[in-house]
Amino acid sequence: MPPTEARVAYNHRLRVYWEDTDAGGVVFYANYLKFFERARTEWLRSLGVSQQALRDDTGAIFIVGETQVHYRRPARLDDLLLVTVQPLDIGRASLVIRQQAWRCTGPTADPGELLADGDIRIGCVDALTFRPRRMPAVVLEKLSA
Amino acid sequence: MPPTEARVAYNHRLRVYWEDTDAGGVVFYANYLKFFERARTEWLRSLGVSQQALRDDTGAIFIVGETQVHYRRPARLDDLLLVTVQPLDIGRASLVIRQQAWRCTGPTADPGELLADGDIRIGCVDALTFRPRRMPAVVLEKLSA
Amino acid sequence: MPPTEARVAYNHRLRVYWEDTDAGGVVFYANYLKFFERARTEWLRSLGVSQQALRDDTGAIFIVGETQVHYRRPARLDDLLLVTVQPLDIGRASLVIRQQAWRCTGPTADPGELLADGDIRIGCVDALTFRPRRMPAVVLEKLSA
Amino acid sequence: MPPTEARVAYNHRLRVYWEDTDAGGVVFYANYLKFFERARTEWLRSLGVSQQALRDDTGAIFIVGETQVHYRRPARLDDLLLVTVQPLDIGRASLVIRQQAWRCTGPTADPGELLADGDIRIGCVDALTFRPRRMPAVVLEKLSA
Repeated sequence: MPPTEARVAYNHRLRVYWEDTDAGGVVFYANYLKFFERARTEWLRSLGVSQQALRDDTGAIFIVGETQVHYRRPARLDDLLLVTVQPLDIGRASLVIRQQAWRCTGPTADPGELLADGDIRIGCVDALTFRPRRMPAVVLEKLSA
Repeated sequence: MPPTEARVAYNHRLRVYWEDTDAGGVVFYANYLKFFERARTEWLRSLGVSQQALRDDTGAIFIVGETQVHYRRPARLDDLLLVTVQPLDIGRASLVIRQQAWRCTGPTADPGELLADGDIRIGCVDALTFRPRRMPAVVLEKLSA
Repeated sequence: MPPTEARVAYNHRLRVYWEDTDAGGVVFYANYLKFFERARTEWLRSLGVSQQALRDDTGAIFIVGETQVHYRRPARLDDLLLVTVQPLDIGRASLVIRQQAWRCTGPTADPGELLADGDIRIGCVDALTFRPRRMPAVVLEKLSA
Repeated sequence: MPPTEARVAYNHRLRVYWEDTDAGGVVFYANYLKFFERARTEWLRSLGVSQQALRDDTGAIFIVGETQVHYRRPARLDDLLLVTVQPLDIGRASLVIRQQAWRCTGPTADPGELLADGDIRIGCVDALTFRPRRMPAVVLEKLSA
């Protein structure tokens, strides 16, 4: 079912450019991980979390620990995509986010076809040592609100 | 001098994500070519030219023939950039576009620091043979308007 | 356990360059999908299957349908990686490949630390319609040999 | 004229993979900057300069200040390329490198067609401040030998 505002935490729209495609004439599958991350970054920003500031202020960065993605239909140059962000689990040092990429179609650019979806596990680590650490309290609060 | 609407044909804003950076902690220089192209694509779209439709309808695609870029200051994660598009020369089979990437700063997100700039020469070719060809008349009209 | 020739079908060595890293100072996780694909491509080539020739001759291309990857330790600029290819399942229209990326260390450049591993499901489709199709018999023979 | 060992400082061979191509069916032009950099990195390594070690030991990194590239013929999936490195000018804080990408053809994989060429200006900077600095003496010696 296409996403509605009621069912996902955040929606990010993006356009497919030449850089995203491969010689198959479609979006190179690895690039959905980039699209998913752009959406997560904007979701964090919408909650007041800037990752560069987070690192500068607390020494914490988020890293991706596991990705599981299904690639269902090809996206093409000039397609408009909607990428969703839905937290499945928010722990003290890690989180799991479910994400989908939809092709927007028609005059109202509604999400019509599911192109790819997956679950992304993210951990909070120290930027210098890459050792796991608890998320800064202020971030955990914003994510749990 | 920062760009004003009077002096450039098109402005495109974009955000710097993890995917754009390298281990120097800044945007990987080759990615400015991607940023420039996103801006050119949106400029064409603003003129009513969709590159996928152009190819499907006329068999023509634009390819990049030459790039000359200066990288002046580093951009960082979460920076908001403004990328300008200024046609320098529009011929029947090729065009030259001058482009700049600025960092937007302050509460009004105005372009404040020039990060990179360059000239991009683009040619129109047949999508199958890659042989140079005239731009479709409808495209040339829109570009010259 | 580090890979040995007895246990994997193919080993591909590659170097980490600036283009592969991100502002965390390590390899951007999405790039392991690229590394895995380079290794699969070289594995196919070692079996006598060139993907460009396959497409030109039969109209068939391989596409990635699903990826499941664990990112375990960060790789850094200049690291030498060994990427393994181990077919888990070879069907008539799809295959599943298990892959690992190891950091090579020491004077003998042996694989020492597991950096990332995952399972990649690949399908054979028609290059024009993206509809699933059986692999050309000559390819299936080479993969099953 | 195709390169010979007598006329260039270093030759690097690489293969074109799916990740390098775009929907035009050919190598995405921005990726020649990556190919050029891989060749420069291996050239430096051949002289005994590891960039990660350079940074760890001296705090110096090389950054690209200017690129000027002509894209002459398209490269395709599975093509084998030879990328040349020819220093034009080696200063105390910067260098200019001329580079070419050739398609290797025939049973001997000799460079046959020039695909892209350009000049790359590189500067030595402090990794933390990005301010220009002299190259460490040991590096300058190796480059000038």
